[in-house]
Amino acid sequence: MEKKDYRPMWKDLGLNLEGHDQLLAVLGNAYKDIYMSQENRPKAMQYLDFVISEAHGLRIEELMEEKRKGNKVIGTFCVYVPEELISAVGGTCVGLCAGAEIGIDEAEKVLPRNTCALIKSFMGFKLAGLCPYIQASDLVVGETTCDGKKKAYEILNDYKETYVMEIPQMKTERDRALWKGEVLQFKERVEEIAGRKVTPENLRQGIKIVNEKRRALQRLSQIRRAAPPPISGLDALLVNQISFYDNPLRFTRNIHTLCDELEERVRNGMGVAKNGTPRILVSGSPMALPNWKIPYVVETSGAIVVAEESCVGERSTRDLVQEDGKSLDKMIDAIVDRYMKIDCACFTPNEERIEHILDLARDSKADGVIHYSIQFCTPYSVESYKVEKTLQQKNIPVLKIESDYGMEDVGQLKTRVEAFLEMVKG
Amino acid sequence: MEKKDYRPMWKDLGLNLEGHDQLLAVLGNAYKDIYMSQENRPKAMQYLDFVISEAHGLRIEELMEEKRKGNKVIGTFCVYVPEELISAVGGTCVGLCAGAEIGIDEAEKVLPRNTCALIKSFMGFKLAGLCPYIQASDLVVGETTCDGKKKAYEILNDYKETYVMEIPQMKTERDRALWKGEVLQFKERVEEIAGRKVTPENLRQGIKIVNEKRRALQRLSQIRRAAPPPISGLDALLVNQISFYDNPLRFTRNIHTLCDELEERVRNGMGVAKNGTPRILVSGSPMALPNWKIPYVVETSGAIVVAEESCVGERSTRDLVQEDGKSLDKMIDAIVDRYMKIDCACFTPNEERIEHILDLARDSKADGVIHYSIQFCTPYSVESYKVEKTLQQKNIPVLKIESDYGMEDVGQLKTRVEAFLEMVKG
Repeated sequence: MEKKDYRPMWKDLGLNLEGHDQLLAVLGNAYKDIYMSQENRPKAMQYLDFVISEAHGLRIEELMEEKRKGNKVIGTFCVYVPEELISAVGGTCVGLCAGAEIGIDEAEKVLPRNTCALIKSFMGFKLAGLCPYIQASDLVVGETTCDGKKKAYEILNDYKETYVMEIPQMKTERDRALWKGEVLQFKERVEEIAGRKVTPENLRQGIKIVNEKRRALQRLSQIRRAAPPPISGLDALLVNQISFYDNPLRFTRNIHTLCDELEERVRNGMGVAKNGTPRILVSGSPMALPNWKIPYVVETSGAIVVAEESCVGERSTRDLVQEDGKSLDKMIDAIVDRYMKIDCACFTPNEERIEHILDLARDSKADGVIHYSIQFCTPYSVESYKVEKTLQQKNIPVLKIESDYGMEDVGQLKTRVEAFLEMVKG
Repeated sequence: MEKKDYRPMWKDLGLNLEGHDQLLAVLGNAYKDIYMSQENRPKAMQYLDFVISEAHGLRIEELMEEKRKGNKVIGTFCVYVPEELISAVGGTCVGLCAGAEIGIDEAEKVLPRNTCALIKSFMGFKLAGLCPYIQASDLVVGETTCDGKKKAYEILNDYKETYVMEIPQMKTERDRALWKGEVLQFKERVEEIAGRKVTPENLRQGIKIVNEKRRALQRLSQIRRAAPPPISGLDALLVNQISFYDNPLRFTRNIHTLCDELEERVRNGMGVAKNGTPRILVSGSPMALPNWKIPYVVETSGAIVVAEESCVGERSTRDLVQEDGKSLDKMIDAIVDRYMKIDCACFTPNEERIEHILDLARDSKADGVIHYSIQFCTPYSVESYKVEKTLQQKNIPVLKIESDYGMEDVGQLKTRVEAFLEMVKG
C-alpha cells in the first residue's frame, strides 16, 4: 500500500518540513536497527510497529479529525496530568515529543547547556518545528516536578500556551489539599477549553477508559515475570511509550491481544531469551519515545529487561483510580488520591519509591537493577544514592548509569553493562 | 593580644582539627588578599574583620554559652526559614557553612558530581567535619527551594537531623495556606526543641529583632546608591554574609555605626571609587560566606558593585514583617505574608523578580547587571534567560556568568568582565 502523503497536513501544522523529513528518516532507520532486528518478536507487536510508523501520520490525522469534531487535544509531559478529566470532556491527552536529540542548537539559545536531555528535547522539538503533537495541541500542560521543567515551561509559554499544575513536594494533608485545588482548577480549565462540563457520567467514563489502559499495561507487566520472559524489554518499553500517544480504547484492545499471545507463549515455555539470561530491572528517569538506549544496550549485552520502574513504566500504571465514587466530588477525591500515590523523586522524603523498587525487583525476579538518570536530572540523580545503598544492603546488584540522548557513550555503556552482567551472573 | 586556643572546643564539637586548621589558614590568607588589600576601607569595617577572624572562635563560644543557658541554636541554609520564631523562644538562627570548595571528595561520595557548589559545600563541610556551626546546631532546617537541596537534605539527615520546610512553588491562595501550615508546624517544632512556647510578647520581640537587622541592612543598601559609593561591593557583601552568623542585636548596632561613617563619607563626597567608575548590580544565586569571587573579579577590573539582587543581599532584607499584629495569629499571618513575598527563582512564574531587578538597577544607578548563576543551579540558570531578555529590551547592559567555587576560571572571568565593562563605559 502506498503511504499517504501527510506533507500538506504537516505544513498546515507549521512543521519545518525539511527537518521533519530528516527526523522521520533517522527515526525510521533507528527503529529498523533496534526493533526489527530483534528475533522471535511476538506477532502482535506488528500493531506497535504500525503505530510507530504512523505516529506522525495517521495518528495526527486522527487528532485533527477529533479537533474538527470539536474535541480538544491536550499535550502533556508528565504522568501527573489527570488524563481522566481530559477524557471526560471528550478530549485526547497526548504525550509531547521529548525523547530525541533534536533541535539542541535551538534549545540552547534559551536554556542552559547543563539542562537535561528531555527538557532540551521538548524545547528543541518546539523551536525547530518538528513535533506534530505540540502543534496539534489546544493546550500544553506542564507541572512543577523538577526545577528544569518548572522553569523551562515559562520559556515554552512564549512559544505555545502552557498551563502549569503545581505538584506538591511532600505528602501531608496540606499537600493533598493543595493538589486537590490544582485538580479542581485543572478541571475548570479543561471545561473551559472543551466548552463542556465534567459530569459524574462522563467522568466515570473517563476514569474507566484510563483505568482500562492501565489494567492492560499491568497485565503486560505481570506476564513479563515469567521465566523466560515472552517479550523483550525493548518491546515492553515501546508499549509503555506508545500508551502516551495512541487512542486509549484501541490501544487497550491491542495490548490485550498482545497479552493473549504472550500468555500462550508462557504456557508453551517460549521466551525471547534463554532461561538463565540475567533479568534486569531498569529504574530511574523516564525514557520518552524514542529513547531506547538503555534497554538496547542491556539487551544486546546478553541480558533482558523485565521491568521499568519509571514514569514510562510502572509509575504511570501501578495505581488505579477507585471506580466506586458516586458523586463528582467523590470521583475527584479518588483522582486526587490516586495521583498523590505517585512516588516521583520530586517528593521528599520518598521512601515509598525505594520500597516499590524492592518489591518490583522481587516480583519481577530481577537479578540486578540498573539505575538510570538522565544527565542533569537532579531528583533522580540525587535519589540514586539512597536507592543504591538500600539495594546493596539487600544484596541486590546495582549499577548506576547517567546518560543523555547522544550515541557517543554507547560503547562505554556496553562495557560497563557487560561487566555488571558478569558480576550478576557470578 | 594572644588569640585564645579554641582547639578544645572544636575537639568537643567533633571537628576534624587538622583539616580545620588548614581551612582557617586558607581562609585567613584569602581574606587578607581580597579584603585587607582594599584601599580606603571604612574604619567601621574593623568590626567585620574582627567577626570574620572569630567566626569559628569567639562566635562559636558564644553559641556554646547560649546552649549552656538552655537556649537553642538552629542552623539554616535559606532566607525562607522564619528567624522570628527562633528568636521568639530565645534561640539563635545561624547560617551553615556552604561557601567554600571543601570536602568535595567526601561530598561526591554521596552526591552527583553535577551538583551545585553550594550543596556540595554544605555536604562536604559536614562530612569532612569542618563546620562548627552545624556541629553546634540543635537542629538543621532545610527547605524545598530547589531539587538539589531538597534531595540532598535526605542524605544530610543521615548525618545530622534535618527538618525540612516545604516552600510553595506558586503564589496562589492555596500556596499561602500550605505555607501557613508549614510556618505553624515549624513553630511547634521550635517550641518543642526550645521547651518554650511562642507567645505574642516574645514573638513581637522576635519580629522586632529581625526587622531591626533588616532595617540596618536596608540603610546600608540605600547609602550605596550615592555616587561615588562610600563602600565597596566586597565589603557590603561581607556585611550581608555576616548577617547570617552574628548576634543580631550587636550586628545591627555595628552596621548602624558603619552606616553613620558611610553617611559622613557621602556628605564629604568621599567614595571608594572615582566618580565615573562603572556601577554594577550583581544578580542571581546566593554567595555564601566566603564566596567572594564575583565582586572580587568585578572590583579588581575597574568597576564597583553597588547592589546584590540575591538571597545574600536584597532578597533577604527588602521586606519587613508588619509589626502591628496584636494576637499571635495576626503575627503569624504577618510572617507568612512577608515570606510569601520572597521572589526566589523557585517560584513559577516569577515575574516580580524581574521587576525587582529593574527597580534595583534604576535605584542603585547601575550601569550594568551581571547575572551570576552557580553552575548547576537550575532555577537561577534557567531564569537568567528571561532576566537577560528583559534587561536587553530596556537597554541595560547585562553579562551572564556561570561559575563554581574553584579559582581556575578567575582569569577567564576577568577577561569577560573587563570586556563587558568596556561595553558599559562605551
